Amino acid sequence: MRNATAKTLTVELGERSYPIVIGGGLLDRAADYLRQAGVPDKSPLMIVSDDNVAPLYLERLESALSGGGYRVVSAVVPAGEQSKSLTVYNDLVTRAIEAGLDRSSAILALGGGVVGDLAGFVAGTYMRGIRFVQVPTTILAHDSSVGGKVAVNHPLAKNMIGVFHQPELVLYDVDTLNTLPPREVRAGLAEMVKHGLIWDREFAEWCWNNAPRLLDLEPEALIYGLERGCAIKAQIVSRDERENDLRAILNLGHTLGHAIEAVAGYGRYLHGEAIAVGMAAAALLGEERGGETGLYAETMLMLRALELPVTLPEDMDTEALMAAMQRDKKFREGRMVYIVPSEIGRVEIASDVDADAVRDVIERLKEKEESS
Amino acid sequence: MRNATAKTLTVELGERSYPIVIGGGLLDRAADYLRQAGVPDKSPLMIVSDDNVAPLYLERLESALSGGGYRVVSAVVPAGEQSKSLTVYNDLVTRAIEAGLDRSSAILALGGGVVGDLAGFVAGTYMRGIRFVQVPTTILAHDSSVGGKVAVNHPLAKNMIGVFHQPELVLYDVDTLNTLPPREVRAGLAEMVKHGLIWDREFAEWCWNNAPRLLDLEPEALIYGLERGCAIKAQIVSRDERENDLRAILNLGHTLGHAIEAVAGYGRYLHGEAIAVGMAAAALLGEERGGETGLYAETMLMLRALELPVTLPEDMDTEALMAAMQRDKKFREGRMVYIVPSEIGRVEIASDVDADAVRDVIERLKEKEESS
Ligand SMILES: NC(=O)c1ccc[n+]([C@@H]2O[C@H](COP(=O)([O-])OP(=O)(O)OC[C@H]3O[C@@H](n4cnc5c(N)ncnc54)[C@H](O)[C@@H]3O)[C@@H](O)[C@H]2O)c1
Ligand SMILES: NC(=O)c1ccc[n+]([C@@H]2O[C@H](COP(=O)([O-])OP(=O)(O)OC[C@H]3O[C@@H](n4cnc5c(N)ncnc54)[C@H](O)[C@@H]3O)[C@@H](O)[C@H]2O)c1
Ligand SMILES: [Zn+2]
Ligand SMILES: [Zn+2]
Repeated sequence: MRNATAKTLTVELGERSYPIVIGGGLLDRAADYLRQAGVPDKSPLMIVSDDNVAPLYLERLESALSGGGYRVVSAVVPAGEQSKSLTVYNDLVTRAIEAGLDRSSAILALGGGVVGDLAGFVAGTYMRGIRFVQVPTTILAHDSSVGGKVAVNHPLAKNMIGVFHQPELVLYDVDTLNTLPPREVRAGLAEMVKHGLIWDREFAEWCWNNAPRLLDLEPEALIYGLERGCAIKAQIVSRDERENDLRAILNLGHTLGHAIEAVAGYGRYLHGEAIAVGMAAAALLGEERGGETGLYAETMLMLRALELPVTLPEDMDTEALMAAMQRDKKFREGRMVYIVPSEIGRVEIASDVDADAVRDVIERLKEKEESS
Repeated sequence: MRNATAKTLTVELGERSYPIVIGGGLLDRAADYLRQAGVPDKSPLMIVSDDNVAPLYLERLESALSGGGYRVVSAVVPAGEQSKSLTVYNDLVTRAIEAGLDRSSAILALGGGVVGDLAGFVAGTYMRGIRFVQVPTTILAHDSSVGGKVAVNHPLAKNMIGVFHQPELVLYDVDTLNTLPPREVRAGLAEMVKHGLIWDREFAEWCWNNAPRLLDLEPEALIYGLERGCAIKAQIVSRDERENDLRAILNLGHTLGHAIEAVAGYGRYLHGEAIAVGMAAAALLGEERGGETGLYAETMLMLRALELPVTLPEDMDTEALMAAMQRDKKFREGRMVYIVPSEIGRVEIASDVDADAVRDVIERLKEKEESS
């Protein structure tokens, strides 16, 4: 009954361990997978999706589940980051209560990272935590389906309100990725190659060599890439579930990336695009701090192969970026904590990076654009 | 430097273990206790209190902490259950962000169970969880300071939105109890004797024998009673942190108690008063199901010694109570899960209690009032 091509990997977290199943045609077999993951059918389930994804896949998931003996209600939220709010959260809790969800119920997130974070926060807090199942439909969501971080935004700060809540199961149907807008595909691949850049040279090189297949959404390449990406993140998270130290390396490219997103203004950069530039900057910084020769050039080639940006527009205000990074709290008294590569596949958590060195790298990323 | 009379007990939860310090004059030494519990002073703290408690004790706690090298901001919410809302929660998160609370900060709850549950939910979700310190000022809060349950209410259901979040430290200054309204004192003692009734006959009898000293807020009696109450709950919680089975016995008297609170209408019964009636009912049910002779009579005497109600007004609608219990979800198809004593100090989780037996007990609690 299992699809031959589906791959399963386990995120090892003791009694909170869970499987990630990656393959084609999984939506239609959701009931079996849920049952196997121990989700009981005596209590209702709630699917949360967004209004881009729901018209494409919600009915299929609903009927797969009700055909398999589950009672299901659904809630559709507007697509986009604005749905990660306490207001939408409260509406979902109301819906869950009205539908009679109890401590044996599960909440399913059908969509990308937005729906995953939002529905996960509902699952993590409804009756002090009920079962959660992710059904990711973006490439970026391979990142959010490992690690258990769920959250909504506060008007003053992103992801400020949240908990750690591990899913029971991640059901990754790669067929759903066919409808993902190409720009979202590329942005998701940025997080995939990041997992290679921080941990596994071979995988980074595989992403590079297979960039055309990934951009074409070739199932075999996608399944392998998502699996490796999830597996690397899972290794890191298993060693540091609550983000005390090691987990920080997952932030490669994110300090500058977040600053770029903030300074450019909401929506101009996708998250994956911004961190691609951030990873290019980190590579340049790493090479200057004595990293391997060619580190920066190779990183650029990899990111470019995935059609990701690696430079900054000349008019982006360097001091505004510096100020935004300072607000990020990893920055104190002229020195900042920065994830810096020493070679492809290896990074260090440097706590002594000089602010001027970062300033200089930003300037050079701009020059690069002029000369290209 | 430590007060000679202060008692410390440890709630054993592996790496989430924490101390409960119970004694007089503790507020003034808060900084030492926080430091000893590992709360760093490099990040600001936020105290949450309510507008009954704040005028009495907030300034003292603030100056003890700032005198001890901590930076402190405070937030005062209206007293009462209505503050356990998402709206007030959101205001507190805003305040925490504006005050610059970060991942090394702690949130302190100065007040009763309302402030504890609310501030605890902020601490449990701010940046996915930061340190939490309880400074209880009610007797009932000895119950809420063990177990890690924190929550706010949803308009459709109490405590619906929450997490498990263990404190770093509970600092129980019994001097603060002197200003507690007598009715709140009695209601808190109901949860104290409950811990005896479910687990420890000797302690139940101690509460009975020392009822006048407890009602008079005699420090030595209070310290002993709160310590035993906390210790019993801690034993139960250590064996079942996530409320899978054993922890259910803590609900002695609560199934009917919650129904009484709901049917009588908000505010008519204090929670402790309602569960006192619930415990009387459970004892009667237990004796009828073959529990020890005198179980009901003794339970009544104990509760009466603490000046708690043990009967129902004749006009309380039995069917309304039955319906409210059914909504409580522990009730299915004419049978309910009910915590039933078999003797003083011992209860069973009975899943086969006949609804008619419960109905009958309710009726008899009413008759009792007529004849007394
Ligand atoms: N929890 C974590 O560890 C973690 C990690 C990384 C990112 N995130 C969060 O994830 C979010 C970003 O995730 P995302 O990039 O998946 O965003 P997203 O969920 O907003 O999806 C991107 C867009 O694609 C649409 N879409 C999704 N799947 C589709 C499909 N199959 N076909 C057509 N359209 C589809 C969505 O409606 C949306 O418009 C952010 O909020 C970020 O904070 C969380
Ligand atoms: N988390 C748990 O495990 C748990 C357990 C039991 C109860 N609770 C929750 O606790 C709440 C009830 O707790 P509570 O009875 O402490 O209620 P509370 O916090 O509302 O306090 C009762 C009243 O006494 C006032 N008060 C408190 N301390 C005072 C003092 N020292 N002097 C004068 N006035 C004082 C308060 O302002 C309030 O008006 C409920 O919301 C309940 O859900 C939680
Ligand atoms: Zn990211
Ligand atoms: Zn109670």
